[in-house]
Amino acid sequence: MAWNETKATLTGRICTDVRVYNADDEERVFAVFSVATNERKFDKETNAWVRGRELFMKVKCFRRLAGSVAATFVKGDPVVVTGKLYTNKWEKDGQTRSELEMEASAMGPDLTFCKIVLLRDERSGMPIETVAA
Amino acid sequence: MAWNETKATLTGRICTDVRVYNADDEERVFAVFSVATNERKFDKETNAWVRGRELFMKVKCFRRLAGSVAATFVKGDPVVVTGKLYTNKWEKDGQTRSELEMEASAMGPDLTFCKIVLLRDERSGMPIETVAA
Amino acid sequence: MAWNETKATLTGRICTDVRVYNADDEERVFAVFSVATNERKFDKETNAWVRGRELFMKVKCFRRLAGSVAATFVKGDPVVVTGKLYTNKWEKDGQTRSELEMEASAMGPDLTFCKIVLLRDERSGMPIETVAA
Amino acid sequence: MAWNETKATLTGRICTDVRVYNADDEERVFAVFSVATNERKFDKETNAWVRGRELFMKVKCFRRLAGSVAATFVKGDPVVVTGKLYTNKWEKDGQTRSELEMEASAMGPDLTFCKIVLLRDERSGMPIETVAA
Repeated sequence: MAWNETKATLTGRICTDVRVYNADDEERVFAVFSVATNERKFDKETNAWVRGRELFMKVKCFRRLAGSVAATFVKGDPVVVTGKLYTNKWEKDGQTRSELEMEASAMGPDLTFCKIVLLRDERSGMPIETVAA
Repeated sequence: MAWNETKATLTGRICTDVRVYNADDEERVFAVFSVATNERKFDKETNAWVRGRELFMKVKCFRRLAGSVAATFVKGDPVVVTGKLYTNKWEKDGQTRSELEMEASAMGPDLTFCKIVLLRDERSGMPIETVAA
Repeated sequence: MAWNETKATLTGRICTDVRVYNADDEERVFAVFSVATNERKFDKETNAWVRGRELFMKVKCFRRLAGSVAATFVKGDPVVVTGKLYTNKWEKDGQTRSELEMEASAMGPDLTFCKIVLLRDERSGMPIETVAA
Repeated sequence: MAWNETKATLTGRICTDVRVYNADDEERVFAVFSVATNERKFDKETNAWVRGRELFMKVKCFRRLAGSVAATFVKGDPVVVTGKLYTNKWEKDGQTRSELEMEASAMGPDLTFCKIVLLRDERSGMPIETVAA
């Protein structure tokens, strides 16, 4: 809940292990991993698609999302992740370090590149909405 | 593949049936459904979270994504969908009608609100990337 | 200030007049106009850029932003607008109508397509931040 | 022109000088600066808005946009910038360094926090679109 957050959405692959912290405390559990995204560009010279820019982003998930993510994903899985960007700062050896990170607000496998079974008994949370006429 | 697309990401619930067209033609198959999203606002008077604005969006998926989506989701499922927005126009009874739609480029269940089994044998597509040092 | 807003950014042209309401009340003033955005696609057959999908969006600005926007823009001006999307509903002739709209949180001319003079004496608001080392 | 770009929009302040390179070559000119963005959060304890996360992002503009940006902005100006994110890598002292950057596709002053004069004679580019009925 905040004003002026910077939002972004990543479509790519998990490219590290998924590490979990405070796994036994559902209020304080969080998961950390990185996502790699690759642009595809059309090369007029060769008439073929080639790789463009890459993006590597560290992502953190908290609480309920962290638990599901840790139980589901391994390195290489295709995902769609949306969240907010911020600059994380810390001290090391007397120097200030900083890194851009994403805090995920929603995340799932990208069904363009994988198939899943949804455990519908475990579905929870927001009520089902009905469509406007 | 285009310049100046308008992108958005929805986090909400599928609020209609998922209809599939051209199901037997993997080049021309597409799926259509709507997603309902609800803002949550903090009400200072009552010190509680209340519902804010709603967004209803028609979403279309094509080809491989359409097949997975149709095989996976039913009304009420929590999803994260990213894609591009455009105004669809058509003629009806001699009048031009228009509606804003999203063409999804990636989509999955939102693991904040459900659990899944990922069928990793069916994983496909882009190569796994390795992280920058 | 809310959770689970749906954000988008438009890059295009103002394609209606800019109408202002409650112009004399700086708490209640708002401006309304529409923005047209056009995709550009590369056509491999003709080796040229062609027009793709169009997007027309009604945009509302409030308070201070509304005043600046009304004093600055006319139909045809190139703009960049960011804000949140929602479905506006109203009753007319006993029927519920709905339309997707954007509430702008920030907006300016797109300097790719125009030049401006910034009236720096009128600059206000948030303090200047200093860069991380 | 590419597929699977990661887009984001910044609303904040220019927090460095705006440096220009190849200023005399309109095909190769580019401008570099950083933007600082601050979340605002509502603190229930004190019933007041407080500063939340910060984001610092290096931004590059190319060609026509670079020329306008360099001629317009100084440190401290309020801006809205939209573009794509990527990880820039380079070699230094035998080590690979990397940094996340944005390439701006559109940019202007944020009229919430400043006033401008638009030099309409200098307006150019895309044709004016007409609104759908």
